[in-house]
Amino acid sequence: MNRKLRLGMIGGGPGAFIGAVHRIAARMDNEYELVCGAFSRTPGKSKQTGDELQLDPQRVYNSYEEMIMKEKELTEDVRMEVVSIVTPNDVHFDSSKMALENGFHVVLDKPMTFNLAEAKQLKEIVEKSGKLFCLTHTYTGYPMVKEARYQVKQGNIGKVRKVVAAYPQGWLTELLEETDNKQASWRTDPSKSGMAGCMGDIGTHAFNLAEYVSGLQVTQLCADLNIVVPGRKLDDDGTVLLKFNNGASGFLYASQIMAGEENDITVKVYGETGGVEWKQSDCNTLLIKRFNKPTEVFRTGTVYVSSFAKHNTRTPAGHPEGYLEAFANHYRNFALCVKAGLEHQQPKEEWLDYPGAEDGVRGMAFIERVIASDKSDQKWTNFTL
Amino acid sequence: MNRKLRLGMIGGGPGAFIGAVHRIAARMDNEYELVCGAFSRTPGKSKQTGDELQLDPQRVYNSYEEMIMKEKELTEDVRMEVVSIVTPNDVHFDSSKMALENGFHVVLDKPMTFNLAEAKQLKEIVEKSGKLFCLTHTYTGYPMVKEARYQVKQGNIGKVRKVVAAYPQGWLTELLEETDNKQASWRTDPSKSGMAGCMGDIGTHAFNLAEYVSGLQVTQLCADLNIVVPGRKLDDDGTVLLKFNNGASGFLYASQIMAGEENDITVKVYGETGGVEWKQSDCNTLLIKRFNKPTEVFRTGTVYVSSFAKHNTRTPAGHPEGYLEAFANHYRNFALCVKAGLEHQQPKEEWLDYPGAEDGVRGMAFIERVIASDKSDQKWTNFTL
Amino acid sequence: MNRKLRLGMIGGGPGAFIGAVHRIAARMDNEYELVCGAFSRTPGKSKQTGDELQLDPQRVYNSYEEMIMKEKELTEDVRMEVVSIVTPNDVHFDSSKMALENGFHVVLDKPMTFNLAEAKQLKEIVEKSGKLFCLTHTYTGYPMVKEARYQVKQGNIGKVRKVVAAYPQGWLTELLEETDNKQASWRTDPSKSGMAGCMGDIGTHAFNLAEYVSGLQVTQLCADLNIVVPGRKLDDDGTVLLKFNNGASGFLYASQIMAGEENDITVKVYGETGGVEWKQSDCNTLLIKRFNKPTEVFRTGTVYVSSFAKHNTRTPAGHPEGYLEAFANHYRNFALCVKAGLEHQQPKEEWLDYPGAEDGVRGMAFIERVIASDKSDQKWTNFTL
Amino acid sequence: MNRKLRLGMIGGGPGAFIGAVHRIAARMDNEYELVCGAFSRTPGKSKQTGDELQLDPQRVYNSYEEMIMKEKELTEDVRMEVVSIVTPNDVHFDSSKMALENGFHVVLDKPMTFNLAEAKQLKEIVEKSGKLFCLTHTYTGYPMVKEARYQVKQGNIGKVRKVVAAYPQGWLTELLEETDNKQASWRTDPSKSGMAGCMGDIGTHAFNLAEYVSGLQVTQLCADLNIVVPGRKLDDDGTVLLKFNNGASGFLYASQIMAGEENDITVKVYGETGGVEWKQSDCNTLLIKRFNKPTEVFRTGTVYVSSFAKHNTRTPAGHPEGYLEAFANHYRNFALCVKAGLEHQQPKEEWLDYPGAEDGVRGMAFIERVIASDKSDQKWTNFTL
Repeated sequence: MNRKLRLGMIGGGPGAFIGAVHRIAARMDNEYELVCGAFSRTPGKSKQTGDELQLDPQRVYNSYEEMIMKEKELTEDVRMEVVSIVTPNDVHFDSSKMALENGFHVVLDKPMTFNLAEAKQLKEIVEKSGKLFCLTHTYTGYPMVKEARYQVKQGNIGKVRKVVAAYPQGWLTELLEETDNKQASWRTDPSKSGMAGCMGDIGTHAFNLAEYVSGLQVTQLCADLNIVVPGRKLDDDGTVLLKFNNGASGFLYASQIMAGEENDITVKVYGETGGVEWKQSDCNTLLIKRFNKPTEVFRTGTVYVSSFAKHNTRTPAGHPEGYLEAFANHYRNFALCVKAGLEHQQPKEEWLDYPGAEDGVRGMAFIERVIASDKSDQKWTNFTL
Repeated sequence: MNRKLRLGMIGGGPGAFIGAVHRIAARMDNEYELVCGAFSRTPGKSKQTGDELQLDPQRVYNSYEEMIMKEKELTEDVRMEVVSIVTPNDVHFDSSKMALENGFHVVLDKPMTFNLAEAKQLKEIVEKSGKLFCLTHTYTGYPMVKEARYQVKQGNIGKVRKVVAAYPQGWLTELLEETDNKQASWRTDPSKSGMAGCMGDIGTHAFNLAEYVSGLQVTQLCADLNIVVPGRKLDDDGTVLLKFNNGASGFLYASQIMAGEENDITVKVYGETGGVEWKQSDCNTLLIKRFNKPTEVFRTGTVYVSSFAKHNTRTPAGHPEGYLEAFANHYRNFALCVKAGLEHQQPKEEWLDYPGAEDGVRGMAFIERVIASDKSDQKWTNFTL
Repeated sequence: MNRKLRLGMIGGGPGAFIGAVHRIAARMDNEYELVCGAFSRTPGKSKQTGDELQLDPQRVYNSYEEMIMKEKELTEDVRMEVVSIVTPNDVHFDSSKMALENGFHVVLDKPMTFNLAEAKQLKEIVEKSGKLFCLTHTYTGYPMVKEARYQVKQGNIGKVRKVVAAYPQGWLTELLEETDNKQASWRTDPSKSGMAGCMGDIGTHAFNLAEYVSGLQVTQLCADLNIVVPGRKLDDDGTVLLKFNNGASGFLYASQIMAGEENDITVKVYGETGGVEWKQSDCNTLLIKRFNKPTEVFRTGTVYVSSFAKHNTRTPAGHPEGYLEAFANHYRNFALCVKAGLEHQQPKEEWLDYPGAEDGVRGMAFIERVIASDKSDQKWTNFTL
Repeated sequence: MNRKLRLGMIGGGPGAFIGAVHRIAARMDNEYELVCGAFSRTPGKSKQTGDELQLDPQRVYNSYEEMIMKEKELTEDVRMEVVSIVTPNDVHFDSSKMALENGFHVVLDKPMTFNLAEAKQLKEIVEKSGKLFCLTHTYTGYPMVKEARYQVKQGNIGKVRKVVAAYPQGWLTELLEETDNKQASWRTDPSKSGMAGCMGDIGTHAFNLAEYVSGLQVTQLCADLNIVVPGRKLDDDGTVLLKFNNGASGFLYASQIMAGEENDITVKVYGETGGVEWKQSDCNTLLIKRFNKPTEVFRTGTVYVSSFAKHNTRTPAGHPEGYLEAFANHYRNFALCVKAGLEHQQPKEEWLDYPGAEDGVRGMAFIERVIASDKSDQKWTNFTL
């Protein structure tokens, strides 16, 4: 099927960061056409963004409810097919639910919902709806992260023994939420962000990456969360000890107060015979370590990488692809799956490799369990859904 | 002015590499809409690509001549405004000339033309046409390359003394042109590529980068070119000693037979008090070296970089932007200037910072002078236009 | 005072690793002359090593007790003045005690003793003896580690908020102690090594580095230790959450089963305005990170580093100094202090900067507290001496 | 044979840099005992250094002539056996000649002599004398440089096609010789240093490294030398195009005015199937690149490296060895060969791998040919001895 999917967007109005990223990602591979949007709860702002994006003013809405209902009334060949939801966390559940139940596929920014109960419910709604659902855990979109998962899955490092994930940031080193920084404000506000700050915003990425690459699931954890900057309302730093379902151990940490750090999310997984190591600051490189043998440097765009890495790359080795391309990989794979569905075809294994509702539920459980553990005097807290 | 520019494309049919890159670059920032194309001289192939891109079949042409003439006949609000030319080098001149003379702005892949005489002529045509012209020397689109130029220009390393540029590749380590590799075939064929192989294809990039970052011009050179792989028809490796117009010295090298190398184009410029160093493999980092002081690590997306770096970045520090974004920066700046023209406004200094006809002529002169020097027994060959 | 100190050695016979390192370190700066040794409990082996080292056979002893008693009987201008103890951990206490009580200065390999009680006792013996005592926590001998401590101490990163230390190794990925590997055998044997394996051997280094660079002391910890390789008797992997006496948080990990890792001990300390980062694999570099400013790359041997870094460097910047030089720095500083004592002069601040009994006691307490925490169901275990 | 060789030193008095390095190198592996010296032409200064080194005042001489003659008169079991010559270049020939002709083995700092004629003569003297001769081209002492040579020699990268060597420094960015800097003064003074400045001082190291690792010999060159800093008397920067005896091409550059650079001497050799890359700033790593396969990271101290790398390493992988250890490797191998000679045994291949007179002659020829080429209008100058 050779046409663009019609895309609508909820959120992403003036001052937003991630909305623009979603739009570039959707545009990158020519798989989507943005046809409508409810970009802000403030009507003038929604219109402003709609105009900037040159949308038909008739299809720029003042609320997602209006958008979903009005789009539904349009003819099948006109109305949006996929909706991207890029609002603060507190809007995720209601808007996703309404979209799915009215027949739209959903791409949702992470974390999935405001709390675990909502996430579980949303997962059921997804399953019941028969619609496709993508949760944009960006980092699993990188070709070398996919290669890492592939190498582990193939047994090339043996049974996994140790998993380390890290997400160091420094942008909240000062009390930025007291300035007019929109990003800082909602992310540190419990009523918008949920029960966790740093752990919800970026700890979930580290958690997702750890499980994705290792192919394992966390079964127990022990968290130490901190509010480092005086006056902040949610955690801005934390470390979590982890136990996995095959007996492996590990830990992750996330922080927003490591002054001078940017966004160098990292994952390392070690097994009986070797290890894999990836970090965003050198995102087209995957180190494959081997016991008593030279480390091998795997690179994006080469002939020797797996079909999972190749499928998610646009240029030959040495032309760096980055964050926007990783994000676009999720959008592209989601589009390929939506189209396969429209054509009643079986999607390829490589296309199905985008994060979904299960990742979302586990991410929300991670947040709840981490908060529970942090409050507990007991060392270990079970990771239960 | 808030609308997309209407873009046509010449070249970029099935099997092409750079055509797809141009299309992604044009799409990235929502500044262009591809409306027509003459993607291949083989009619079926042009149609195939047009269909894949979901173009109106009426506007998929069998030749660029047809496209230019037919588009010209369309009404002003429908016809293409900018044409991207992404063919092998031998088609650059004629198609650019025809496009410019018929009122279309041109984005042309490098090198500018088949030879220097054509390049000079094309530059005159550009100037006479009143149309805008961009030559896609990709690497000057990187934010940290722009920062490097800015730092040098500001005098932050003092008067420039030494300039080093390198473009190491390894993909032509074997006689790939004997296989059915389209990229290798035309790039090593004198009738398609021109008088130079490696020096024309990638040496020109190193040359352009050296002059761009240093702010200097080459006045003399001494070249040693090699055909390393037996059976190849054009140079696949070479080193060139350089003298610059302020008295500085330096060299560049380019090679396609450094087995295991990818595309790590690099530039280093040293002055009386410090130096700047950039390489594509770590493209979001600029090292600023200082005599007897610590090296400073400048990074894309930070608050402390110049307006030239900031204007050409989409995401905060630590979310890697790469080759496609650098390419897109040229397209975006070109669009901003075209639109400024349509609105009779003065473009900003940051927008004007894309490579143009002067870069193209100098690049072609570089090729001719390098070939002349390689054949000469004299050490130094003057760099004259 | 311009003469070499007379050095004796306990341990370091055939098959030992660290003994040879101590000897090179002592020799490096011409401050010591090895005059005697009790290199092994097996008499033939002690003689073998003594011969290899060209010692006077009269001064090669079959036990440390014999060495101490016989050397004591020699005239003051002949007998050893300093003794290096490089045996497995179970011998540390008795031999150090005897040496100190008989008038010899002691350089002791870490960890200080077999258990905390011994360490405290030994510290008292040191203080009572009036003799000098050095515990060779190698990594604080690196010039850039000293620079890191200096920068933190000067307040250049503000009040410390977060401390991370890591010691990843992979050499015990397999059950090496079942082969005839002497190093693996004693280090994994509770009767030789003490209650901890990995945490005692290398976790103590990470702990020492964390406290040294941050200038803080651990007050609480939460440990998760693992025996990863089946059949092993002591921990070979672990992570420890840390609380510090100024309210800062952090963690350390140490592992000997991260297949493909070598010895890349690392420390990162972050404060209110910046951070410092050092790792052994790039040991002559110290990254100084700053909030919203470029990272600065400090380098060994430069003009701009502190007197602590300069004093501990032999060659100009860019001539890499490494592990043996770091080790030698402890030996050299210890010699300078011993000599200052002999001359009744005040040692310089830079000379006094070698690890001593206090570091040793804290290291042993770390081992005991980590083991206690690992066994506890409570999250936090107080760090008490 | 288990005893230390008796070493004398010519040069290396107060203010010298390389003399101290030689002494540490000689001491490192316990193979030498410094027994005498003529450290300076200024008598008081020679005595000062002799005292600092605790030498027998009877064996601290005021001139090398005196030292050689007096030492010769001592009994065979007392007199020096090896002499280290670490003076400025103008003294190299006479002192080496006298030492060799009077029966002493010689370790000489590079470059070999003041000019090529002397070098050739000295090579003949060495051969005639039957004494051993080592020229301390430090960088071939690094284990990973030896591994690089081994890999090339084994054919693991195929027939060599391209050779690149670089020695960037920045310490002469200013006119340091006008201050009281002893190092800068003699190195930029034609009467002490010879006809070349930068090319003699460090270009020769790059040249030596290029030939050593590639296993090839330069046959033609084309040099561009510069005096960048006004007022300097000798070249402080230059690039040299190279042709090798198997048809390979390449280049080297050396500079002392690349502000902010330290001593990152680098070599890269590419063949038909791969390449090797080494640089001093990461001296324990050797990159082995392969066409269409992952780069392999070879590391000092591992189990998988060659006997040449292993023999020249003291500590396990991940404990960085550096410049002093590389230097010491030459001293140690030289000692092993001298001792083998004393015992009428055949030295091992690994021991013989230290630079000698042939390297010295080629280095001096390089200097002369580079200067000749720089002055010539012809592109290529033959490299003849």
